[in-house]
Amino acid sequence: MSDETAARHNEKMRKIKAARDRMMATKTEEKGLIMVHTGSGKGKSSSGFGMVMRCIAHGMPAAVVQFIKGNWETGERMLLRNRFADEVRFFVSGEGFTWETQDRERDVAAAQNGWKIAREQILDPEIQFVLLDEINIALRYDYLDIDEVVDFLLTKKPEMTHVCLTGRNAKPELIEAADLVTEMSLIKHPFRDGVKAQKGVEF
Amino acid sequence: MSDETAARHNEKMRKIKAARDRMMATKTEEKGLIMVHTGSGKGKSSSGFGMVMRCIAHGMPAAVVQFIKGNWETGERMLLRNRFADEVRFFVSGEGFTWETQDRERDVAAAQNGWKIAREQILDPEIQFVLLDEINIALRYDYLDIDEVVDFLLTKKPEMTHVCLTGRNAKPELIEAADLVTEMSLIKHPFRDGVKAQKGVEF
Repeated sequence: MSDETAARHNEKMRKIKAARDRMMATKTEEKGLIMVHTGSGKGKSSSGFGMVMRCIAHGMPAAVVQFIKGNWETGERMLLRNRFADEVRFFVSGEGFTWETQDRERDVAAAQNGWKIAREQILDPEIQFVLLDEINIALRYDYLDIDEVVDFLLTKKPEMTHVCLTGRNAKPELIEAADLVTEMSLIKHPFRDGVKAQKGVEF
Repeated sequence: MSDETAARHNEKMRKIKAARDRMMATKTEEKGLIMVHTGSGKGKSSSGFGMVMRCIAHGMPAAVVQFIKGNWETGERMLLRNRFADEVRFFVSGEGFTWETQDRERDVAAAQNGWKIAREQILDPEIQFVLLDEINIALRYDYLDIDEVVDFLLTKKPEMTHVCLTGRNAKPELIEAADLVTEMSLIKHPFRDGVKAQKGVEF
């Protein structure tokens, strides 16, 4: 690379840095966020668990409520229960993907129980981050009332507590209420080519 | 809810389960995947770290090479270094976001060094999962040669080793070579409203 190219590059980077510094100087507020991870792609739950790990690193007490993946012995569940039981409270309310149970009454009861636990954890002043994993599935099938959930998050959640809600098909009311919404989209998936779910990757 | 509604729901769920079981029965292959997390939304790195945590839980030795986030003391780095040094090899090649350095030669050298470490880790038969965090930034600015990286992944990567490459603006060549690609899209972000990056959430 010529000196001239390098100089041009460095000047461009200097401008980007200046613009970014100006932008970041306006970002001064701290507040507890309502975050939603939705879409049909990978990474909704795993990035939620990634944030739980960040909380552990920073000494921020966290809670996880799993709404649907009840009967899978996932890596994240094993790790949190076996290694981080002091740092993270871990609850499972669901009994598996809903199509595994084929019993709506039982699904509704499990979801309602999960939501009761979720409210308690969110209101607990000790807890700074709550992951409601796959709650969007329970909301989509109306196992939980969307208006009740949104109203609770907007009016009862302590100001500095972060709540992350995951699952595909997030309801519009939840997206409207959220501070930060990410859609994970599937561009390519190996299931199409006959590759099965693998440990470390999917669970 | 009436008995009839419940019966209809249960029948619908039974059909979904049958279709899903048929679909999953065709998914029998196990192989090491080339995975890409891209897009401008959140969750690219944190879901990569979530998978590393799953690997720890399953006793799968993993390695992480961070290409760009060099000078941030992130939660994930603290956690992996302080608590999981036996399970996960952790390397940092970059010196911060590229606009922090304003020195292209130094950025190129750091990226090349990271790629050298990455190749060693991918080729190491001990290692089952390698996270190349923010490598897409290094590829985008041509600090690394995309053809060299893609060729290595397609021809040198051991068959059962998973590699996950993160960062926005993934190059088309990488997407073409990958088995699994997820795009994280920003639907809503609180930076717009003056909220700054917060621990546990962004780092």
